[in-house]
Amino acid sequence: MSAITTRELVEIDERRLLRRLDDLAQRGALPQGGIYRPLYSPQWTSAMELVATWMKDAGLLVRRDPVGNMWGRIEGSRGGRVIATGSHIDTVRGGGALDGALGVVAGIEAVSSLWQRFGRSTRILECVAICEEEGSRFNTNFWGARAIADRLEPGEADRVRDADGVSLGDAMRGVGLDPAAAATAVRRDLDVFVELHVEQGPILEDHGPRLGVVTTIAGTAHLEITVRGQPDHAGAMAMDRRRDAFLGASAMALGIAEAAVRMGHPAVATVGTIVVEPSQVNVVPGLAKFTVDTRHPDPARRGELITQIGDLSKKIASERNLGVEIKTLRDRPPVNLSPRVGDVLRRAAVTAGIEPREMTSGAGHDAQVLTAAANAGMLFVPSIGGRSHCPEEATAAEDVVLGTRVLATALRELAYQT
Amino acid sequence: MSAITTRELVEIDERRLLRRLDDLAQRGALPQGGIYRPLYSPQWTSAMELVATWMKDAGLLVRRDPVGNMWGRIEGSRGGRVIATGSHIDTVRGGGALDGALGVVAGIEAVSSLWQRFGRSTRILECVAICEEEGSRFNTNFWGARAIADRLEPGEADRVRDADGVSLGDAMRGVGLDPAAAATAVRRDLDVFVELHVEQGPILEDHGPRLGVVTTIAGTAHLEITVRGQPDHAGAMAMDRRRDAFLGASAMALGIAEAAVRMGHPAVATVGTIVVEPSQVNVVPGLAKFTVDTRHPDPARRGELITQIGDLSKKIASERNLGVEIKTLRDRPPVNLSPRVGDVLRRAAVTAGIEPREMTSGAGHDAQVLTAAANAGMLFVPSIGGRSHCPEEATAAEDVVLGTRVLATALRELAYQT
Repeated sequence: MSAITTRELVEIDERRLLRRLDDLAQRGALPQGGIYRPLYSPQWTSAMELVATWMKDAGLLVRRDPVGNMWGRIEGSRGGRVIATGSHIDTVRGGGALDGALGVVAGIEAVSSLWQRFGRSTRILECVAICEEEGSRFNTNFWGARAIADRLEPGEADRVRDADGVSLGDAMRGVGLDPAAAATAVRRDLDVFVELHVEQGPILEDHGPRLGVVTTIAGTAHLEITVRGQPDHAGAMAMDRRRDAFLGASAMALGIAEAAVRMGHPAVATVGTIVVEPSQVNVVPGLAKFTVDTRHPDPARRGELITQIGDLSKKIASERNLGVEIKTLRDRPPVNLSPRVGDVLRRAAVTAGIEPREMTSGAGHDAQVLTAAANAGMLFVPSIGGRSHCPEEATAAEDVVLGTRVLATALRELAYQT
Repeated sequence: MSAITTRELVEIDERRLLRRLDDLAQRGALPQGGIYRPLYSPQWTSAMELVATWMKDAGLLVRRDPVGNMWGRIEGSRGGRVIATGSHIDTVRGGGALDGALGVVAGIEAVSSLWQRFGRSTRILECVAICEEEGSRFNTNFWGARAIADRLEPGEADRVRDADGVSLGDAMRGVGLDPAAAATAVRRDLDVFVELHVEQGPILEDHGPRLGVVTTIAGTAHLEITVRGQPDHAGAMAMDRRRDAFLGASAMALGIAEAAVRMGHPAVATVGTIVVEPSQVNVVPGLAKFTVDTRHPDPARRGELITQIGDLSKKIASERNLGVEIKTLRDRPPVNLSPRVGDVLRRAAVTAGIEPREMTSGAGHDAQVLTAAANAGMLFVPSIGGRSHCPEEATAAEDVVLGTRVLATALRELAYQT
């Protein structure tokens, strides 16, 4: 229909966008606040059904792929490789209303608006709600994006289990999916994947501007550190004879945080989980096991941080007469996103009068996995207080609208070529 | 039959004693080592049945009381108030073979030997396997001794639940006991309760001699400390903007242990359990909740320690911009045992050629609760390495035998008066 003009910021239905974000936030809302939509749970199913309804209302061709990613499609008049946008539908436990959800809802809004205002695209245009990114239920994440990018491991669905012992495969069967077909979710016809996301950190809020284009996603290492001491009676064993595994773990956690602080921004290191054994009020912990999540966009610096964490843990263990084992659960190198897609996003932002900030993402995102299947790019909008993965996660409504309009504008440049 | 002579150490069947300790250790043995016999579990039932068999084999009149304590009785020729001995049958998770078990098995052996060698006692003589002391399954302990001492709380059986949500009352019904009858387990006819127990600490091993007579049981306070921070994204939230509840808890745990060390022996303070929320590898902990077990035989010093723990926790919370709440779960004052029973135990030890050490027990024991129902006394034998509440808990066979013979000798003085 209308000829392509990238100097024009695409209009969207702002009220519909914000209302849908609110509606989606009801799916998996916890009584104590926050949201939890674990993969293949009833809350997840309910959210996916809502998303499918919105896609159908927009006139898109909707299909659920073999791992449960929900796709909505406009057949482009000239075919070719696909321009896709979206994000994930799952959340962490007690998460917020925007992480993942914004990219899903904004993607549908952007594609709907383009279809409504400019008709059929020349390129095939798809929006997607990716089934899983957070790794909250199963100790495997990017399940959806990895399926698309042909990065599933053989037998993974049967091997991985949730805290209740349910296998990923059985969880799939529970929502009518066949784990044997998971590998067929692969997409070899993608050209571009664009993801709008909240920053989840304080940089845009503290330093501006209101938009960021991600160039690199920091590498994430997850370590599991097991400290072995000696369980003893809490009343009878003298303090100076103890080998308290939890005190060792405490000293390590403080040292690990201090190492990241000393290295300086954007180095981070987080002890997010810990269990002790035997976990009785009147027994000195004989074992403590905790995880460390550590990230840095510079691979050399990240390696340095991991080395420091190992060294200080061993030193503390030795001082306290404790055993220590360090296991690498995951070690993902930093990922560079597509400069071409970054340029398109930058141009779209400039159309809104904003020169976007070039940013590193400390958080991992579907886009990093989809670099294996497409030219992937990401657009960030500010997070209020830098907060995320918590009930208080929020972005100003005008920034949500701005980000969605810029996303739509970028998709127009990508999919409505003449 | 034979006239009483306290200058003679009573003989026992050593091999039977040691074999029975081994047999009992099979009931609730865990595949990974250690023992777990939670109250009213199948393992507990199996252990109780074994004990009842031994009591019957010794010719005792056996009865299970309304909370499941197992009693075996010799009717004394002259009646009067009862002389009782025993300990508890339950264990901590992953506990050892002697904590509680020694007092139960040695009590039966001592009473059997006395009956076999000297016939009917003049006083009524009972041995008892107390159903629960450790508080491992339910957050209530001394359940058995409190029932005997009329210290149950109204409605307690229906209120208290285990980790699976099973009420104590339902657990009782599961083993054929009626919770409504629990209060009728009270004994108002006890004169003396003597308990043989492993020290669970290193004092007898380090400083000798091989026997201790307990004069005081240290008061135990259990605190629950809740630290409230802010859950944030582990990748995206800068280190200096975090309010990490687990780091606060770590600093507190180290400070609490240091406070006990500074106060000096026998002050102890232990962080035995901790949970964090949301407990995800990639989320900064927004909440940490841990328990503190702290003890001192001097009530003033114990109070001082509790005050220090509160003060340092608040100071750390304030420095780290965290909230903190401190709740007292339990606060039991120190308990003095019966000097009269202590004298009897001391005389019996001297018969074995040992002047026993007068000791404070850092651990809590059934005897402390039974001071409300009887003149209670305790005899300690050494713990190898001071270890207890762990699979390695052990006492040299000759000390087990020595303790049992001294117990039998003391019971003879108490129950075979002419």
